[in-house]
Amino acid sequence: MGIILFLILGNAAGAQTNDSVFIAGMSDEVLVNSKAYDNLRVLCKTIGGRLAGSPQIYKAETWGVNALKAAGADKVWLQECMVPRWVRGGKDIAWVSYAGAPDKTIKLPLDVLALGNSLGTGAKGVQAPVILIHDFDELEKRKDEIKGKIVFYNHPFNKKFVQTFRAYGEAGPYRWGGPSRAARYGAVAVVIRSMSDATDNYPHTGSTEYDSAYAKIPCAAMGLRDADKLADLLTQGKKIQLYYKSNAHFLPDTIGHNVIGEYTGAESPNEYITVGGHLDSWDPAEGAHDDGTGCVHAIEVLRAMKAVGYRPKHTLRVVLFVNEENGLRGGTQYEAQAAANKEKHLFALESDGGGFTPRGFSFSLQAARLDKLRPWIPLLLPYGIAAFNEGGGGADVTPLNETMGVPVAELQPDGQRYFDIHHTRNDVFENVNKRELELGAISMSGLIYLVDKYGL
Amino acid sequence: MGIILFLILGNAAGAQTNDSVFIAGMSDEVLVNSKAYDNLRVLCKTIGGRLAGSPQIYKAETWGVNALKAAGADKVWLQECMVPRWVRGGKDIAWVSYAGAPDKTIKLPLDVLALGNSLGTGAKGVQAPVILIHDFDELEKRKDEIKGKIVFYNHPFNKKFVQTFRAYGEAGPYRWGGPSRAARYGAVAVVIRSMSDATDNYPHTGSTEYDSAYAKIPCAAMGLRDADKLADLLTQGKKIQLYYKSNAHFLPDTIGHNVIGEYTGAESPNEYITVGGHLDSWDPAEGAHDDGTGCVHAIEVLRAMKAVGYRPKHTLRVVLFVNEENGLRGGTQYEAQAAANKEKHLFALESDGGGFTPRGFSFSLQAARLDKLRPWIPLLLPYGIAAFNEGGGGADVTPLNETMGVPVAELQPDGQRYFDIHHTRNDVFENVNKRELELGAISMSGLIYLVDKYGL
Repeated sequence: MGIILFLILGNAAGAQTNDSVFIAGMSDEVLVNSKAYDNLRVLCKTIGGRLAGSPQIYKAETWGVNALKAAGADKVWLQECMVPRWVRGGKDIAWVSYAGAPDKTIKLPLDVLALGNSLGTGAKGVQAPVILIHDFDELEKRKDEIKGKIVFYNHPFNKKFVQTFRAYGEAGPYRWGGPSRAARYGAVAVVIRSMSDATDNYPHTGSTEYDSAYAKIPCAAMGLRDADKLADLLTQGKKIQLYYKSNAHFLPDTIGHNVIGEYTGAESPNEYITVGGHLDSWDPAEGAHDDGTGCVHAIEVLRAMKAVGYRPKHTLRVVLFVNEENGLRGGTQYEAQAAANKEKHLFALESDGGGFTPRGFSFSLQAARLDKLRPWIPLLLPYGIAAFNEGGGGADVTPLNETMGVPVAELQPDGQRYFDIHHTRNDVFENVNKRELELGAISMSGLIYLVDKYGL
Repeated sequence: MGIILFLILGNAAGAQTNDSVFIAGMSDEVLVNSKAYDNLRVLCKTIGGRLAGSPQIYKAETWGVNALKAAGADKVWLQECMVPRWVRGGKDIAWVSYAGAPDKTIKLPLDVLALGNSLGTGAKGVQAPVILIHDFDELEKRKDEIKGKIVFYNHPFNKKFVQTFRAYGEAGPYRWGGPSRAARYGAVAVVIRSMSDATDNYPHTGSTEYDSAYAKIPCAAMGLRDADKLADLLTQGKKIQLYYKSNAHFLPDTIGHNVIGEYTGAESPNEYITVGGHLDSWDPAEGAHDDGTGCVHAIEVLRAMKAVGYRPKHTLRVVLFVNEENGLRGGTQYEAQAAANKEKHLFALESDGGGFTPRGFSFSLQAARLDKLRPWIPLLLPYGIAAFNEGGGGADVTPLNETMGVPVAELQPDGQRYFDIHHTRNDVFENVNKRELELGAISMSGLIYLVDKYGL
C-alpha cells in the first residue's frame, strides 16, 4: 500500500460518553507508556520456560513481585501452595524404521516432545510396531489389535472451525485421555499428532492425565509434518517399528506461590475484583503467549489505572497463578483461601489466550445476564472487542466460579496464530507484537473499569 | 492455556439464513482447500520483490496468469499500460560523524533505504551538516537555517491511534512531500524517520513525490532506532555531519500489464464486479503482505466461488494491478479502458492492507447508503468483519470511483502488525499466517456474494 490513500477507520463507539472518554484515556496511557512489553521481555529472555516447581518459576515469582511493585501495587505478597514437579529430564527421542529396498531398513527420526505429566520409558526406551488410529471410535473397533503396540493417534485439527479453540477442544481429548484409553487395550506407548494445524513440524507438548485404572504408558506428541509422513507410510501398508525414549518423571511435590498484588479500593476495600494470568509455562520455549502475556496484561491493568489516577471502588487484585498447565493448584488454592477468609469477590478475569489483538470476552454468565452487559461492547469495540460470549472464564479463575459462584471471564484474543505457537518452541517473545499485546491490556482495563463502576 | 477449559465462542450471526449457510460453505471451502497460501509462497519465494518495470514483475505477471487459470477463470488476459521504472541501483549507504573525545571523530553507520521515486546522490555521495526537524511548522520557522544542510524529519508515528493507518496518514506527508519542502529552502538532502512504530531498526521505503518547482534532492528513510539515536545526539547539541550515497534513478518508462481473469456472470455478463490487489511491490523483501496477500485473496475469491459451484449473476473480474506503489498506472489504465469500452461496473473491492485477520471493510459510500448495507455485518462477523466504515476503497480501484462513480471498497485487516512489515525487509512470506490470510479471502468472498446477489 502506498501513501496515496489510507484508511480512516470509523470509531464504532459513536457518541462520546464519560466512559468512552475515560477508556480512551487509559488507551492513550497504555499505548504510550505501557510496561507490558518490557516486562514480558524480561520474563521471557532472562527466565524463559518455567514449569511449576522448576528453578525458573521461583525466579519468575521474584520477577512478578518486582513488576507489581513497579506498577504501583499497594501490597504484594506470595500465596503458598503445593505444586507438582514434573521434569522432562532431557531430550525426547523417537524414530521409526521400516523395510525399504531389499535388505535395507529405512530409519526416520521424529521430532517429539513427551506430554506433560507423562512418565518416561526408562533408559532403553520402548520399541514396538505402530498402529494408526484416527479417533476413539476406531480405537474401540480395533481394540483387539492394540496389545503390545504403540498407538499413533492422528486426529487432525478441524480446519473448518474459524475459532481455533473449537478445534483444540475437539482434538484435545486425544492428548488428555488418549494414552490411558490405549493402555486399557494393552498399548505400550502412545504418540499423538500435535494439537495444531501449523505449517511447521514443531511438536506441541501439554498435559496428559493418566487414568489410575490402567498402566501409565509413555506418550509423546509429534510435529505435524512427521505425523503426515508416518500416517502416509502406515496407510501404504508399511510395517513400522517406532522407538521412543523419554526420561520424563515426577519429583516430589514442592512449594510454589501465587504472586498477588493489590490496588486497594476506595469504597469497598474488602470486595475484590481479580485479574490474572498464569506464571507457569511449558518448557520448550519462553512461555511468551502462554501465558507471559496474560501476566503482563494483568499487571498492566493495575499500572494503567494507577497511572491515569483512577482509584477503583473495589480492591483490584492482580494474581499470577503458579500452576495452570499441569495441575491448576494455584487457581484452586486461590479459591480455597478466598473461601477460608470469607472474602467477597465481585468478578474475576483471566487472560490466557495469548497476546494477540483482542476480539471479545467470554463470560460464565448466562444469556440473560450477559445481554445486560452487551451495551458495554461499543465502549470496547474501538480496542477490538466485538463480542461478549458465553463460555466461561480462564482455568485459574474457574474455581472461584464453580465453588463460590463468582462471575468470571476470559479475554478472547484473535486465535488464528495461537496454535502455531502454543506449547512449542515457537512460544518466544519475538512472536508477540507490542501493540497487539497492549490492546489486550486496554480491553481488560476497560472491562474492569466498567465492572468496578457498574457491577455486573 | 491447558486443556481443562477451552472457549466456545458464540457465533454472533445468530439465526441461520440461506446466506449465512452459503457463506459458511465458502468458508469451509477456503479453510480446507484454499490455494491462497501456496500461491503466495510461489510468488514470494520464486519471484520476490517486484517493482513495476523490473524483470521480476514480468515473472509475476506469468505467475498471475497461471494462478488465475488454475483457479478456473473463464478467460485470462494482460492489459497493457506504460509504467515507470525506478531502480534502486544497489545498496544505499549512510553514516553520521561527530566529535567524540578530543581529537577523535565518532562515525556511526545508519541503516537507510532511498525513498521510492527519489534520485540518488551520484557516486561521491552527499555530505553536509544535519538539522533535526520535527514537523513542517518547525521547518517553516527555521527555514533560514536549512540551506546547505541535510534535513532530518523525525516525525514519529502517533502511538495513540489504535488504527495504525491513521498514524501513517499523519506521518506520511514527511515522506511524500518532505523532500521538496526542504529543497525549497536549500536543503541538499533529506533523511526521514521511517513510517512505523516498530521495535526493530529496519528502514521503510515507499514513494516520495518531487515538486518540480524545486531541486530534486536525494532522500532516504532510516530505521527507528537509528532515528532515535541521531535525534538524541542532535538534541544534545552535537554538530553532526551526515553522509549519504544512493544510486537511485529512473530508467525510461516501459510496458507493464494488469493481469485480469474473469468468471463470466450468468445473468448480466456485461456488468462487472472487480476484486483485486496489486502485483507490484517494493524491493527490500518479497512483497508478501504488500500486496501479495491482496493478489492471492482476489484469486481465491474466484477459485472458491467456482469450487462451491456458485455462478455469479454479474461477471467477476479479478485484477492484479501492475503499479500501485509508485505511480498507480495500473489502476488508472484499468479505469481508462473501462470508460473507453463503456463497461458497466457494479462494484470494485481491493485488498491492500495485508493478510491479517479481517476486521472490517471501508467503502466509498456515504453514511446513509452504507447504513443500508450494515445488516450484512452479522453474516460476516463469524469471519472477523465487525464494521463497515466510510473511508474509500483501495488505491487501484479509486479511479473507478472518482471518474466513473463506481462504489468501491477495501478490506480492512487487523493493522497492528502492518507497519512493522510494510516496505521493509520484514515483508516476507514467513510473516503471513495461513489462516489469517484465508479469513480475508472468506470475508471478501462473502461480501462479493452479497453484492452480486443484492446489489448495493
